Amino acid sequence: MKIAIVGIGLIGGSMAISLKESGFAHHIIGIDRSQDNLDKAIRRRLIDEDLSLQEGIAAAEIIILATPMNALKELLPKVLDLVEDQVVIDVGSAKVDILNIVRHHPRRKNYVASHPMAGTEYSGPEAAVPNLFDNRCTVLCDIEDSDEKAVELTRQLYAAMNMSLIYLDANSHDIHAAYVSHISHISSFALALTVLEKEQDEKRIFELASGGFRSTVRLAKSSPEMWVPIFEQNRDNVMDVLDEHINTLARFRSLLIKKDFKQFHQLIEKANSIRKIIDKNL
Amino acid sequence: MKIAIVGIGLIGGSMAISLKESGFAHHIIGIDRSQDNLDKAIRRRLIDEDLSLQEGIAAAEIIILATPMNALKELLPKVLDLVEDQVVIDVGSAKVDILNIVRHHPRRKNYVASHPMAGTEYSGPEAAVPNLFDNRCTVLCDIEDSDEKAVELTRQLYAAMNMSLIYLDANSHDIHAAYVSHISHISSFALALTVLEKEQDEKRIFELASGGFRSTVRLAKSSPEMWVPIFEQNRDNVMDVLDEHINTLARFRSLLIKKDFKQFHQLIEKANSIRKIIDKNL
Repeated sequence: MKIAIVGIGLIGGSMAISLKESGFAHHIIGIDRSQDNLDKAIRRRLIDEDLSLQEGIAAAEIIILATPMNALKELLPKVLDLVEDQVVIDVGSAKVDILNIVRHHPRRKNYVASHPMAGTEYSGPEAAVPNLFDNRCTVLCDIEDSDEKAVELTRQLYAAMNMSLIYLDANSHDIHAAYVSHISHISSFALALTVLEKEQDEKRIFELASGGFRSTVRLAKSSPEMWVPIFEQNRDNVMDVLDEHINTLARFRSLLIKKDFKQFHQLIEKANSIRKIIDKNL
Repeated sequence: MKIAIVGIGLIGGSMAISLKESGFAHHIIGIDRSQDNLDKAIRRRLIDEDLSLQEGIAAAEIIILATPMNALKELLPKVLDLVEDQVVIDVGSAKVDILNIVRHHPRRKNYVASHPMAGTEYSGPEAAVPNLFDNRCTVLCDIEDSDEKAVELTRQLYAAMNMSLIYLDANSHDIHAAYVSHISHISSFALALTVLEKEQDEKRIFELASGGFRSTVRLAKSSPEMWVPIFEQNRDNVMDVLDEHINTLARFRSLLIKKDFKQFHQLIEKANSIRKIIDKNL
C-alpha cells in the first residue's frame, strides 16, 4: 500500500514506522510545510520520499492527516477537493469541529475521522518512536458518514498498527477526550506553572523533585503548537471538565480549612479506585 | 551495623534492601504494629528478625522510624525515652510539627530529622523495591540540634544508599515539600475523582485512557493512611500551594472563557520550561 502522511511529527512519524514495520505500507510519502522536518524524516528513514501536497495525494492510496488541529481545519477540505477514490484519515484529538467543516463536502465519504489514543510529551519527527500505538485504542467517529470500503481499509490500517477500535459519535468522543486526555494536560501545565512561579531557585526543585512530581508534570512539556488548537476546538467540553476539576480541588481545600481529615481520607479512598482502571490497562 | 527499622512498608522495606545490599547494615531488625507485615518482611528476607519496640531499640545502633506521620508523632518521643547512645532517624515527609514535639526532649541530640525524596504510589512490605533511592536526594533538617556524630552516621547511611544530601531548616523543607511533592498528590487525587465521577462507565475510561492520563493520575493510587497525616501536619503550606494551584487553573479557565488563545499559548510556553528542570534530573 502506498500511503501519504501529511505532518511528519510525533504521530505521523510513529505511524510511518508502524505501518512500514507491519508490512501494511510498502511506500511512505511524506508531506510537510517544513522542509527541515522532511529532511529529518528522510534521514531517519521514516519516509521514502517527500512530495508536494498535490503530487503526494495523486500518488497515494491512503492519505493520513497528522498535522496540528488548526492546520487540519484548512487542510482537510483542501485534500478532499483533490482526491478521487483515495481514502483520507485524520488523527486529530477533537472531532466535532472538523467534521462540521466537511459535512457537505462532495467527497465526505472518502474521509474517515479517527483518533488513535497514544502520544508522548515530545514533538517533531525526532520524537517518532516504534510501538507507540501497540495495544492502544483508536476511536473512529461517525463512520456512518464514510464509505464502507474506506472504513474497512481504516480498520485494517489500525489493526496492522496493533490497535483495537471503538466507535463513538463525534460529540461523545470530544466529551470523553476532554476527560481522559485534555484535562490531564491543563492540570499538568498548571502544576508546572504553580511550582515554577514559586520556586525561583530552580536548582532547589531540580534537587528535590521526586518521581511523583515528575510524573504529574510530564505532560507540561507538551508543545503549545499542538495543544492550543485542541483546547480551542474542544473548548466547551474542556471548560466543563476544568470547572469540575477546580470544584474538586476546592472540596479538598475546604476540608483542609475545616481540618476535616476524616472526609479527606474518604475522598482519597474514592480516588484510589482509579487503580482498577489504570492497572488493568498497562 | 545493626539497624532497627520501625514500620516495614514501602520506605522502611526499601531502605532495608539498600542498607543490606551496600553492606552498611549486617543485621536488620523489623518492628511493626502489624504482625502480618513482619511475617511478609521475614518471608521476603527484608529483615533478619522481628522484635518488640523495646527489644529492637536495645539491640540496635541506629533506629529508623518509617511509619506514617500520625504514628510518628507518638512514636518519636517514646523511642527517644528508650535510647541511650543510639541514633534515631525519621524519614517523614513533613518536619516542623514533629520537630516541635521533641524540641525539649533530653535525648533530642540523638535524633536526626531526614526526608529521603523518593517513593512510589504503592505501600506495605510488598511494595519495597531495590534501588528506590539511587541518585535521589535526602533532606536533613535542623542538624544543628543534633549531635555531630549522629549527623555524621546519618550522612554515611544515606551515602551508602547512593543518595545526595541537602540541608534545610524544617520550615523551608515543609514549604518546598508542599510544592514539589504534596500538591502533586492532591492534584492527582482530584483529577482521578473528577474523571471517576463523570465517567461512570469505567470500561470506557479503561479503553480510552492513554499514557498521559495514566501518568497524571498515577499518584492517585497512593494510600490515605500515609498521605492524610502528611496533609494534616503540613496543612498551612499545602493550603497555600493549593490556593495558588487553583488560581493558576482559574487563569486557564478565564482564558478559555475569553477565547484568548494567544495568552493560553504563552502560558503553556512558560510551563514548558519545567523541561529544563525535570529532564536534567532523570
